[in-house]
Amino acid sequence: MISVGIIGSSGYTGKKLISFLAHHPGVQVLKLYSYSTSGQDLYHLFPEFQGVFPNLPVGALSNLDESLDVYFTALPHGESIKVIPGLIEKGKVVIDLSGDFRLDEPAQYDQWYHFTHSAPHLLSQKVYGLADYHRTSYTGKKLISNPGCYPTVTLLSVLPLAEAFADDILTVATVAYSGTSGAGKSPNADLLLSEMDGNSRAYNLHQHRHEPEILQELQKAGMFAPFSFAVHLLPAAVGMYATTSIFTRKALDPAEVTAAFETFCQNQPFIRFRKQIPQIKWVTGSNFCDLSVSVRGNSILVTGAIDNLVKGASGQAVQNMNSYFGFHPAAGLLPSEGNHVSFHS
Amino acid sequence: MISVGIIGSSGYTGKKLISFLAHHPGVQVLKLYSYSTSGQDLYHLFPEFQGVFPNLPVGALSNLDESLDVYFTALPHGESIKVIPGLIEKGKVVIDLSGDFRLDEPAQYDQWYHFTHSAPHLLSQKVYGLADYHRTSYTGKKLISNPGCYPTVTLLSVLPLAEAFADDILTVATVAYSGTSGAGKSPNADLLLSEMDGNSRAYNLHQHRHEPEILQELQKAGMFAPFSFAVHLLPAAVGMYATTSIFTRKALDPAEVTAAFETFCQNQPFIRFRKQIPQIKWVTGSNFCDLSVSVRGNSILVTGAIDNLVKGASGQAVQNMNSYFGFHPAAGLLPSEGNHVSFHS
Amino acid sequence: MISVGIIGSSGYTGKKLISFLAHHPGVQVLKLYSYSTSGQDLYHLFPEFQGVFPNLPVGALSNLDESLDVYFTALPHGESIKVIPGLIEKGKVVIDLSGDFRLDEPAQYDQWYHFTHSAPHLLSQKVYGLADYHRTSYTGKKLISNPGCYPTVTLLSVLPLAEAFADDILTVATVAYSGTSGAGKSPNADLLLSEMDGNSRAYNLHQHRHEPEILQELQKAGMFAPFSFAVHLLPAAVGMYATTSIFTRKALDPAEVTAAFETFCQNQPFIRFRKQIPQIKWVTGSNFCDLSVSVRGNSILVTGAIDNLVKGASGQAVQNMNSYFGFHPAAGLLPSEGNHVSFHS
Amino acid sequence: MISVGIIGSSGYTGKKLISFLAHHPGVQVLKLYSYSTSGQDLYHLFPEFQGVFPNLPVGALSNLDESLDVYFTALPHGESIKVIPGLIEKGKVVIDLSGDFRLDEPAQYDQWYHFTHSAPHLLSQKVYGLADYHRTSYTGKKLISNPGCYPTVTLLSVLPLAEAFADDILTVATVAYSGTSGAGKSPNADLLLSEMDGNSRAYNLHQHRHEPEILQELQKAGMFAPFSFAVHLLPAAVGMYATTSIFTRKALDPAEVTAAFETFCQNQPFIRFRKQIPQIKWVTGSNFCDLSVSVRGNSILVTGAIDNLVKGASGQAVQNMNSYFGFHPAAGLLPSEGNHVSFHS
Repeated sequence: MISVGIIGSSGYTGKKLISFLAHHPGVQVLKLYSYSTSGQDLYHLFPEFQGVFPNLPVGALSNLDESLDVYFTALPHGESIKVIPGLIEKGKVVIDLSGDFRLDEPAQYDQWYHFTHSAPHLLSQKVYGLADYHRTSYTGKKLISNPGCYPTVTLLSVLPLAEAFADDILTVATVAYSGTSGAGKSPNADLLLSEMDGNSRAYNLHQHRHEPEILQELQKAGMFAPFSFAVHLLPAAVGMYATTSIFTRKALDPAEVTAAFETFCQNQPFIRFRKQIPQIKWVTGSNFCDLSVSVRGNSILVTGAIDNLVKGASGQAVQNMNSYFGFHPAAGLLPSEGNHVSFHS
Repeated sequence: MISVGIIGSSGYTGKKLISFLAHHPGVQVLKLYSYSTSGQDLYHLFPEFQGVFPNLPVGALSNLDESLDVYFTALPHGESIKVIPGLIEKGKVVIDLSGDFRLDEPAQYDQWYHFTHSAPHLLSQKVYGLADYHRTSYTGKKLISNPGCYPTVTLLSVLPLAEAFADDILTVATVAYSGTSGAGKSPNADLLLSEMDGNSRAYNLHQHRHEPEILQELQKAGMFAPFSFAVHLLPAAVGMYATTSIFTRKALDPAEVTAAFETFCQNQPFIRFRKQIPQIKWVTGSNFCDLSVSVRGNSILVTGAIDNLVKGASGQAVQNMNSYFGFHPAAGLLPSEGNHVSFHS
Repeated sequence: MISVGIIGSSGYTGKKLISFLAHHPGVQVLKLYSYSTSGQDLYHLFPEFQGVFPNLPVGALSNLDESLDVYFTALPHGESIKVIPGLIEKGKVVIDLSGDFRLDEPAQYDQWYHFTHSAPHLLSQKVYGLADYHRTSYTGKKLISNPGCYPTVTLLSVLPLAEAFADDILTVATVAYSGTSGAGKSPNADLLLSEMDGNSRAYNLHQHRHEPEILQELQKAGMFAPFSFAVHLLPAAVGMYATTSIFTRKALDPAEVTAAFETFCQNQPFIRFRKQIPQIKWVTGSNFCDLSVSVRGNSILVTGAIDNLVKGASGQAVQNMNSYFGFHPAAGLLPSEGNHVSFHS
Repeated sequence: MISVGIIGSSGYTGKKLISFLAHHPGVQVLKLYSYSTSGQDLYHLFPEFQGVFPNLPVGALSNLDESLDVYFTALPHGESIKVIPGLIEKGKVVIDLSGDFRLDEPAQYDQWYHFTHSAPHLLSQKVYGLADYHRTSYTGKKLISNPGCYPTVTLLSVLPLAEAFADDILTVATVAYSGTSGAGKSPNADLLLSEMDGNSRAYNLHQHRHEPEILQELQKAGMFAPFSFAVHLLPAAVGMYATTSIFTRKALDPAEVTAAFETFCQNQPFIRFRKQIPQIKWVTGSNFCDLSVSVRGNSILVTGAIDNLVKGASGQAVQNMNSYFGFHPAAGLLPSEGNHVSFHS
C-alpha cells in the first residue's frame, strides 16, 4: 500500500486521476494539491464525486506533504518543471503528465516549447512512460514522463510497423482528431459549445509539440521515414481518433502486417487489436487503445481510438504507477479487478 | 432606402443583424461599430462572410456617424443605456436588443438588473417591440425595445390564451430551454463544449430578468394568474423551446382554444400555429415562431420553438425595423422575398 | 451469492445491467438471453466489454435456464408479460424493466398501453420498485416492477412535497427532457443524429404512458392536486432532467420545504439533495438522483437529474436486487464499494 | 427562365435542391417527384418550408412531366441509371447527384459499385461537374455527373498541386471526416444520435467508392503518385473536413505552393483560399470550399472544409446548372445576389 499526492487536482486530468486512485486497491493515502483551488474540497470541485468517494481537502502547494511515496503532477507545461526537481532530489517517484520532460534533447524545448529547460539532467534520467510498450522499463527511474495523448495513440499505431518493417516504410502521415477536453478547462471563447458544436478544424499544423515527441520515439525504434502530423478538434468533449496513412516501398503481405500487430499487442491488456474498425465510443471512459489495420498493395491504414483523458493521460499514468510499484496492471482501472463472479453458462 | 448603423457588431446578435441587413432590399447604407473590435473588418470578425457580403470596416463608437436613420444597439445590459439617450435626443430611431428599456417601471431595474435607471423617461416613451403581436404599435415612437428571447416565445405562447380566457386560467408555468449562444461569446468555462456537451441544467430559478418582463406584458393583456418561469441550457448552440403548462378553473373546449390561437396568429407571417408539435430544427436560422397546443380537461400544454438569435433577437429586431419603416415584414428575413418563380404543377 | 439471468441483453438497458452485474460482489452466475441476438456473444454485442468482463454467450429464450435465483426482464412493453407469469409460478424473483406491471389497475392497460392485461393478478402482487422511497417494501413479493425513467425522477421530485404538504398544493406540472437512448436502439429515422443534433421537441403530450404511473404513486401518497406532464427529447444520448413547477395555496416557508426534502432523502445513498441546481453531467453513468428546490412565495420549482438508463432503469433495477437480497445498497453500483483506502490529510 | 424537375425530393439533397431552386431568379417552374413520398406535399415533407416557399405537390415518377428543361436526379446509386437514359434520349439536360455516371470506365462499376453498367455510352458523353475547376466544360454535354462529396473537397485540395507539381509529389493521403447526413435519412441504428453522439469512426477503408473517382480525376490532371483515402464520421449532422498529407521528393518553396493555389482559385467565387486554417462552421449551409495549405520541407498539409450537402452535393449541382444555362454562378446560392446595398463607410 502506497501514499499518493496529486499536484494539480482541479483540471480534467486531475479529476480522472482522483477517480482512478480514490478506489485503487494499492493506495492507502491520497492527498490533493492545487494552485488555483486550494482551500476548497473535492465535493466542491467535482459535485459528481459526492457520495462516491469520501470528501478530501485540496491543499496548497506551499504546504505539500513531502512524505508521500509518489506524486502525480497534472500541471500546465512549464509549471511541472518548477516542482519536480525538488521532489526527485528528495527521492520521490514522480509521474508527470505535462510535456516538460517528454523530449530527450534540451534544445528541443527552446524550439518547440519556447523555454530553456532548467533541469536538463532529468531529461535523460526519466523514463518515457508509454505503458503498453514492451520496451518501456522503469528500472532505476524516479521520474516517469507520461506521454502526450496524440503520441500515445500514434505510437501504438506505428510502432508495430516500425519494429517489423522499418526499412519498407516510405512515408507516414498521421491525422488525428481530439475531443475538446484535451485543451483543458480554462475559459476559451473558441472552445465554447456555441463555437464548436457541429464544428471541426485543424490547428497547429507543422507546429504541434507532440510531433517531435512522436518522432523521437519512432526513431528510437529504428524508423526514419518522413513523418507528418495533423491534429484537429472534434465536436465532442472526450475521445481521440488517429488515422495513420503509410505507404511502403513494396506491397506488404496483409497477414504479415497483422502478425506484426499481434506480436506487438500480446500480453498488453489495454491494447485491443481488432478486425473491426475502432470507434471512439468503445474506449470512452476506459484505459484501452483500440487498433485495427487495413492493407492494400503498398498502402497501409492504421486506425486507433483512445479516451484522450484516460489512456491519453490519467489512465496511462495510473498504469505506469501500477507497473512501477508491482500492482496488477489494471488495478484501479478496471471494474472487474477483484471480481469473483464465475461465468458458467 | 434607409441608412443603418449596428452598434455592437462582434457578438452573436450583431452577426445575425449583419446577415439580415447586408442584403436587405430597403437598406442603402450599413455601418458597423464596436467597442472591442473597432479597427478590424467584417471578414476578420466573421470569416464566413467573405465572398458573401462586401467587406465592411468596424468603426469605433467614438467615431459614430450620427447621420444615419436607424441604429441597432446590440450591447450588453447596462451599456445600451449609455448610448441610446443621446441618439434619441438627436431624433434618431433606435432598436435596442438589450434589456435596458424593456421594463416599464424604473424601480424594477433596481430589483432585477441591480442598477438605477438613468433614463426613466424613455421607459414610458418606448414601444415594447413584440413584432408578431397585433397590439404592438410604433406610432409616435423613436425607441423600440426588442423583447428578450425567452419573453418572445413565452408571450407568443400565452398571450393567445390571456386574450381569450384570462379569467379561466388558474396557474401558468413556463419551462424553457435555450441553446448556449444566448449567453454570448465571452469566454466562460461553464459553457465550454467540454462542459456542456451531453449536459443540461436549469439556472437563475426565481431570479431571471426575463420573468418580470413576461409578467408585465401578460398583465397588460389582462392576465393576473400566478406565473412561474424556469430556464435551462440545452446542449446545442442555437434554438429555444418553451413548454407552458396551464391549468384552468374549468375544462376548456379544445376547439375554442385552437380558435383563440388561430385568431391570434392570423396575418402574422412569422408565427406558424401547427397541429404537429414543433421542433427546434424547423425554426433554426429562421425568424419563425412555431406553436402548438394540446388541451385535455383543465390542462393546457403550449409548446413553442424559436431560434433564440433570430426570432429571439436579431430577426425580430429587423422585423421591427421593417414594420416601422413600412417595408415588407419579411424583407431581408426570407429568401423568397422578391422571388418570381411560378409554381405550376 | 446468487445466480442471475438477464432476458433481453442486447438493448441499452440490457447493456447497463451487464455492466453492473458482471462485477457485482454478490453475483456468482450471470447468464444472458435475447430474442434477437441469441447465438452471439457478449464481445460481439458490445465490443467495449472485451477485456473488461469475461466473454459470455447469449442464449435463446427457448433454452432459458430456469434454475437461477433472479431474472431481469429488459424487453419491450408487451413482451415481458409473456415471460414473467411462468417465472413467477416457478417461484422465481423477477425484476421487470418494462411497463407491463407498473400500473395497478388492469383497465389502465387498455387505455394507455392498448392491450388487455393477461395477468392482472400479478398487478396487485408486485411491488412498484421505487428503490429510493422509504415506503417501498419487498416483503412477500416475487415480482418487482421497476419504475419508468420519467416517473423515477418525477416521483423523487414531488413525493417529498406530497408527503409534507399535500393539502397546500394547488397544481403540479412536470416538464422533463430525456436523452434519446430512452427510445432504445431500434432503427428510427427521427432519432438519427442527422435529425436530432441541435434539435429538441416535445412528444406524446397528454398521451405518455408514464403519466398514469406517476399519478398512481402520487395519489397513494395522498396528493390529488391536478398534475400535468410534458416530455421532450434532448440532443444528447443519455441523461434526463425534470423540472416541476408547483403552485401552493399559500406561501410556504422555504426552510420547511427544504426540511421536507432532507427528511425524505435521509438514509437514501443515491439521492443527493443539493443547494446547487443539478446538472445532467453530475449523474451521467451513475445511479444518483440529484435534486434541488427553489421556493418563492407560492411558487416552488423542483429540479431533478438522473441518468435515464441507470437510475431511470438498470441501476435502479440492481439497487432493487440489492435491497431484495440484502446486499449493500450500492453493491455493483459504486466503484468505491469494498475500497479500503484511508483518506488521511 | 427555365423549368426544373427534381427527381428524388424527399432526402437531404432533395431538400437542399428545393431550398436553392425555389427562389432561384432563373427558375420559372419547379416540380418535385419522389418514389417514396409521392402524393404528399412540400410542407408535409419539410415543415420548415411552410411560409418560406409556396407549397408544392410531390408527384409520382410515373407521371413525370417530360417537357421541363432540366432534371436533377437525387436518387440512390443504382436508381438514377434507370431514369436518366430516357431523359437524355428526349434531349433533356440531366444533373445527376448519384454515383451512377461519375466513373469513366464501365468495368469500374463492376468492381466498386457491384453492378454492370447498363448505359456505358453515357459514361463518356457526360461531363464530370466539378464546378469550381477551370477545366470543367459543359459544351456539347447533356448529362452532368455531379461529383461526390469527398471527391469535391479532395480534388479541390489536391488539383492545385497536381497541376503545378505533379512530378514532385511522392505520396498523397487524404483523411476526411463527414457529418452523418452524408449517409442519408434512412433508418439506421448505427447512425442514431444515441450511437454517434460523442463518437467517431472510420469506415470502408480501402473500399470507398469515392476513391476511384478521385484517382480518375487526379490522373487526368497528370498526377500518378500513390494515393490513399480514409473516411470517417463526425458527431455532427452536416459538414466535411478533409486533410491531405503530401510528401514531395524535394522541399518545395512555400511561396510557390501558395501561388499555385492562388492561380487555381482565381475567378472561382466559391473557393476561399485562406491563410487561416478552415473551420467547418465557416462553410455550414453555404456553397463555399475553404482551403489552406501549410508547407514545411517536403511535407505539405492541405486542409479543406465544405458543407457535404451543399458544395458536396446540391449547391454544386445548382452551380453546375447556373454555368450550363449562363446564369450568374451564384444565382440562388448567395443571399446577396441581386442586392443593391451600397456600403459607404
